[in-house]
Amino acid sequence: MAYSGGLDTSVIIKWLEENYGCHTIAVLVDLGQDEDMSLLEDKARKAGAAKVIVRDVRDRFLREFCFPALAANAIYEGKYLLATALGRPLIARELVDVADREGADAIVHGATGKGNDQVRFDCSIMALNPDLQIIAPLRSPEWKFRSREQEIEYAMMHNIPVPVTKERPYSLDKNLWGMSIECGVLEDPWIEPPDDTYFMIKKVDDTPEVPEYVTIGFELGIPIRFNGEAMQPVKLLERLNEIGGRHGIGRSDLVENRLVGIKSREIYEAPGATILWLAHKELESLVLDRETLHYKESVSLKYSEMVYYGLWFSPLREALDAFMARLQNLVNGDVRLKLFRGQCVPVGRRSPNSLYDLSLATYGAEDAFDHRAGEYFCQIWGLPLKVCARARKKDHTEKQGEK
Amino acid sequence: MAYSGGLDTSVIIKWLEENYGCHTIAVLVDLGQDEDMSLLEDKARKAGAAKVIVRDVRDRFLREFCFPALAANAIYEGKYLLATALGRPLIARELVDVADREGADAIVHGATGKGNDQVRFDCSIMALNPDLQIIAPLRSPEWKFRSREQEIEYAMMHNIPVPVTKERPYSLDKNLWGMSIECGVLEDPWIEPPDDTYFMIKKVDDTPEVPEYVTIGFELGIPIRFNGEAMQPVKLLERLNEIGGRHGIGRSDLVENRLVGIKSREIYEAPGATILWLAHKELESLVLDRETLHYKESVSLKYSEMVYYGLWFSPLREALDAFMARLQNLVNGDVRLKLFRGQCVPVGRRSPNSLYDLSLATYGAEDAFDHRAGEYFCQIWGLPLKVCARARKKDHTEKQGEK
Amino acid sequence: MAYSGGLDTSVIIKWLEENYGCHTIAVLVDLGQDEDMSLLEDKARKAGAAKVIVRDVRDRFLREFCFPALAANAIYEGKYLLATALGRPLIARELVDVADREGADAIVHGATGKGNDQVRFDCSIMALNPDLQIIAPLRSPEWKFRSREQEIEYAMMHNIPVPVTKERPYSLDKNLWGMSIECGVLEDPWIEPPDDTYFMIKKVDDTPEVPEYVTIGFELGIPIRFNGEAMQPVKLLERLNEIGGRHGIGRSDLVENRLVGIKSREIYEAPGATILWLAHKELESLVLDRETLHYKESVSLKYSEMVYYGLWFSPLREALDAFMARLQNLVNGDVRLKLFRGQCVPVGRRSPNSLYDLSLATYGAEDAFDHRAGEYFCQIWGLPLKVCARARKKDHTEKQGEK
Amino acid sequence: MAYSGGLDTSVIIKWLEENYGCHTIAVLVDLGQDEDMSLLEDKARKAGAAKVIVRDVRDRFLREFCFPALAANAIYEGKYLLATALGRPLIARELVDVADREGADAIVHGATGKGNDQVRFDCSIMALNPDLQIIAPLRSPEWKFRSREQEIEYAMMHNIPVPVTKERPYSLDKNLWGMSIECGVLEDPWIEPPDDTYFMIKKVDDTPEVPEYVTIGFELGIPIRFNGEAMQPVKLLERLNEIGGRHGIGRSDLVENRLVGIKSREIYEAPGATILWLAHKELESLVLDRETLHYKESVSLKYSEMVYYGLWFSPLREALDAFMARLQNLVNGDVRLKLFRGQCVPVGRRSPNSLYDLSLATYGAEDAFDHRAGEYFCQIWGLPLKVCARARKKDHTEKQGEK
Repeated sequence: MAYSGGLDTSVIIKWLEENYGCHTIAVLVDLGQDEDMSLLEDKARKAGAAKVIVRDVRDRFLREFCFPALAANAIYEGKYLLATALGRPLIARELVDVADREGADAIVHGATGKGNDQVRFDCSIMALNPDLQIIAPLRSPEWKFRSREQEIEYAMMHNIPVPVTKERPYSLDKNLWGMSIECGVLEDPWIEPPDDTYFMIKKVDDTPEVPEYVTIGFELGIPIRFNGEAMQPVKLLERLNEIGGRHGIGRSDLVENRLVGIKSREIYEAPGATILWLAHKELESLVLDRETLHYKESVSLKYSEMVYYGLWFSPLREALDAFMARLQNLVNGDVRLKLFRGQCVPVGRRSPNSLYDLSLATYGAEDAFDHRAGEYFCQIWGLPLKVCARARKKDHTEKQGEK
Repeated sequence: MAYSGGLDTSVIIKWLEENYGCHTIAVLVDLGQDEDMSLLEDKARKAGAAKVIVRDVRDRFLREFCFPALAANAIYEGKYLLATALGRPLIARELVDVADREGADAIVHGATGKGNDQVRFDCSIMALNPDLQIIAPLRSPEWKFRSREQEIEYAMMHNIPVPVTKERPYSLDKNLWGMSIECGVLEDPWIEPPDDTYFMIKKVDDTPEVPEYVTIGFELGIPIRFNGEAMQPVKLLERLNEIGGRHGIGRSDLVENRLVGIKSREIYEAPGATILWLAHKELESLVLDRETLHYKESVSLKYSEMVYYGLWFSPLREALDAFMARLQNLVNGDVRLKLFRGQCVPVGRRSPNSLYDLSLATYGAEDAFDHRAGEYFCQIWGLPLKVCARARKKDHTEKQGEK
Repeated sequence: MAYSGGLDTSVIIKWLEENYGCHTIAVLVDLGQDEDMSLLEDKARKAGAAKVIVRDVRDRFLREFCFPALAANAIYEGKYLLATALGRPLIARELVDVADREGADAIVHGATGKGNDQVRFDCSIMALNPDLQIIAPLRSPEWKFRSREQEIEYAMMHNIPVPVTKERPYSLDKNLWGMSIECGVLEDPWIEPPDDTYFMIKKVDDTPEVPEYVTIGFELGIPIRFNGEAMQPVKLLERLNEIGGRHGIGRSDLVENRLVGIKSREIYEAPGATILWLAHKELESLVLDRETLHYKESVSLKYSEMVYYGLWFSPLREALDAFMARLQNLVNGDVRLKLFRGQCVPVGRRSPNSLYDLSLATYGAEDAFDHRAGEYFCQIWGLPLKVCARARKKDHTEKQGEK
Repeated sequence: MAYSGGLDTSVIIKWLEENYGCHTIAVLVDLGQDEDMSLLEDKARKAGAAKVIVRDVRDRFLREFCFPALAANAIYEGKYLLATALGRPLIARELVDVADREGADAIVHGATGKGNDQVRFDCSIMALNPDLQIIAPLRSPEWKFRSREQEIEYAMMHNIPVPVTKERPYSLDKNLWGMSIECGVLEDPWIEPPDDTYFMIKKVDDTPEVPEYVTIGFELGIPIRFNGEAMQPVKLLERLNEIGGRHGIGRSDLVENRLVGIKSREIYEAPGATILWLAHKELESLVLDRETLHYKESVSLKYSEMVYYGLWFSPLREALDAFMARLQNLVNGDVRLKLFRGQCVPVGRRSPNSLYDLSLATYGAEDAFDHRAGEYFCQIWGLPLKVCARARKKDHTEKQGEK
């Protein structure tokens, strides 16, 4: 069972025992959610888990899930960098792995029946081990709790540790790639998100008064240098989350379309991922030719859908990744970005694979472009429109003649 | 001849007389480039134009070119709102109209052989009147001038008025939808654009210390209200350009792909258009269902290409517009945006066509969603992956058996 | 309730009475399924229908559903012209109309839980009247019949007329646009379809020994002339189904992907629709320019998906239709086709909107194409590849130098 | 220089000597055009070639160019399997290789300025060696010949061997993947292609009276077995061209869009390639899931464009190939096809990777599909339409209320 440490998953353990008579292995997957894993481990045990397994997969998360998505410039509906969506299939993979090793019959998760996460868990599990049963109590008709209060009551009755505070009325999910904030007052899409919806990111008013410049170095499309210094993925994201958050970078406020057919309003924070995404796109603008870049823009839309829709472990996502990976051979070089007052703006880019050719681009004296070519090119480029216009004219004249 | 008032077009008039022995009608098309038209008119006459025609098409420009592009959420390579690209076909249409009325044999324009504008002019003219000749001296082998200085010398020799100042070393083009800045130091894509590349837009440091909120009201996808008050297109853009510029909104720095196969580095400023583009997209996120929205994202890429590539007057652009127009029936309502420190952030959206349904979205007590449906949906959604996994497992087992 | 006259829908009437205690209005929608409607009417009454309503919507079916699909060149997975998929939304529209007029609470249909038709019925009903309840007994857990035999037994017990013959073990659906054949021996995709799967179409061996030529005339993309003679839609399809069937034209054998995630094997027969589809595409090849034609190919894929997936009454399908309709302005003219031995081959096409220009196409003496333009065009077309190659070469040289 | 043995290329050798004072290496590339290479070699020498190089690249042509296109199901405008388009980049690669080895300054080809082949040659050469000059005399203003007769006269004057016969008035190009036929009477798109346009393929009247069945076996998407027997590519294509041709399979008659903006009418014959293309698609319908298959349909359109447009040696084609190659891992198995009277119909398909699951597909007693899932799936699938309909209804009611 995927254990998060929250109220739902804590209650589920006991509920499973009562309803299915089974005992549960709690799996804690560390994707960089910034929680004390040993505390959670303890909590899981107190909640009744027969066994607790902790896995730190932060490096793998970035290398195998986030960086391919970065290579694809993946973003959902123009605003969401898919942090949670990328994390779910990896959690599912760990769960399947544990289930196989421990001989479990079923995998349990705490997703509801109206969210996207159920789809991501279920589809990933089905794709990795089609014979495992999947139990999601929150969408079961037998799940009797109708409110948080009822769950707390049940928890207290069974000596399950419950969260003390209940101030923040938001539903949160966080990992190294970003976090999502939903529910509460955010459920009204006309209302501006209040100050207490800021977590990783400072409000623009509270950002430094001087800009900061960072340079990200890429090799084969993978960010490997920070300001000229080689840096491992986890370290890099931690650093960029800190800097980006400080400058107020990477928030979005989105009325989004869930796979189950409803619209919901979400706030996303992804300071580090936003910086990398901007830098990566900027570098690609320098090294990919027009046809490639434009076609990639549309493939990127599909890729993002696949991730959001829970279809990570699918032949199509793998084939799209092969497409992306091939192009990343060209994505080497540096991007310099200015971080200031909530904005991250690429201000410089350079690459050994640069297709920017000054002698072709310049209007100065070194201009190497044959301007006559332009005229002939236009003749051919516009030829279908000319033929079209002539056909229209001729047809028109003939119809006039008939009258 | 399309007369801009710049050095090139001023010199061309005389050059045409010398080389082709023809006299020229200068056409001045006002798209909101913020120039004194009567001054330009005078200048054209002094440069040798046989006749000068001025046309104020600002309202038409917005209604027939910019607002359809807004409906399409058109943006080129993620950064360019296509101000110049949208203006060219309209200038061409005016030129063809003048040529038809005045009985001209040819249309002259001052575009070079390596830019996009030649394509936009030529294709538009070919599509509107396939029998007109097109002359673009700057791409002709007979155009002997190799530098700005040589042109100035020639101009002085022929009493053609020349611009006094030559401080700003940039090539500029401006209209109500935005402006473009290129050349000079910008030709090095590693260098940050200096302060003198800011025209319509303030630097973030110089923006007000308090945010400003604006509310844009749309009907059928067209922006018609500003802060609750009905407003005509030209007025609306002027207002938004002023406010947006003041808050530092709408700049982009792009290494872009020209149609003629070269990369160039451009700075774009489009304060008003940026605000409208963000507002329009935001409203669509509320009123379009997922399938429609996602498909539109990809059609939008094609639409933007068509505009950038000079194919405005083409059957495909018209058909894409019919697609967009149909969807705009749903795009009614208001978007509230916060303008602050270079950023424009939509913070609220509402619509009579809203598909946001609180009873479906909420995790609160009013939740009307049947969570069991989620489980069955996942079963079917993931079924192909399950079948896939089973086939793989079976194939694997059989191969093991063979060994 | 949608009544087809088959065993399932006959049994359902009584079953509804027993299980829901409600009486049923049977709606018979005539799409050209070639059944005696008065016989079916009688049968419905005997099966227990409180009221029977017959609607002949053949003309409307072709004009409002099939011809738009023809304009879109709609075909699913390259083989299925969507006859049933186009019929369902119209049946649903009639049902909703009857329900509204008669004040019914629910709509009943006989589709199963694993097919596409349930989706088409349900989605159409939901889109047209979101407040109507939908009952589909065959996917209900209370539907107790496990085989055809049990249903027959039940029918006999309740004096419901049952089909006498049960020779043909296939599941069939037919209308003017085509028919589908599934089940039985066809469920093995390695087996060739036997002779008794031929219904509307002759086997190639049994076709005439001489070819037949037909000429279809289009106006605004709609087929309106047969061999030069004006012809109404229903008449035209009847005629083409007869001729096409006689020459063995329009069969396909497809392992297809249902929306519910399973593959099934289907045989389709669509003689008339196939002839029209080929003719329409052929005419478009003459009148649409390259960019338009190629882009339309991809839009056509989406359109076909929308129809197959049951999303006829959706904003996206409507917008796609607006796109298609705009282009059909150009689709006027004639196509001549040769029908022979199972094949339908377009052999001639002509149009007042033809973009075929002999003076440009010919290699003969009248050649009007400026061949120099080709050279310059290639220079620009290939320029990105050249720049690419140069960058690679330079990078390679530098790396060599470093060693 | 690419030497074909035709009149144009024969005359060019002498013309180059006269106009450029250079001597020429004739390169004969054997792609299976069914010509006697030693005769051509001799002819080239007599025409004045300083050196003649013959390269048999038939196997490489199929493996590196045709089979990837087969994996992509590449077809241009629905009818053209791209035989010539696939051959040109390989010829260009050989030419560049020879030029590099022999130290040539320029590559010469005989393509005209209005065809596609110039683009394919030029772009390939530019991509492989950007520093080589390209000479195409037929599009040069100095190429003085205005007719075939003038070329023959010139040839006779210089003792260049000329073709004796001139009966067939068509322009032809042939290789193992297919052939193209154009010009002559075919330039009128309303006229049916006459009997003398049949080369590789029999007219349907002349085909055998009994069908023939063939079974093609694929591994990783590559055809490797013929009727159960392993077969090398060249042998396989020779065999299939013979059988397919005998049964009249693989002809198409297409008004196509050239890259240079004109429409031309072409006849294509590709018996072997057609059989393989049909077989490959059929196998994919069995092993690819719906999302993958549908997305691949659209990628296939792009792939075909890239090939037709001469962009073989480009980053985008390579990345598309990586996408295709990844999916081909699943494309293993056999397809059985019936060849008869001009038609090739897949009648059976089987695969170890088959996703066809009888227990899910059947309507028989073994049905393993949970029909309730269908109902819930529809609820979610149609939910956006329902919400849409409710919003419309509500908006409508409110507007009524206002009146």
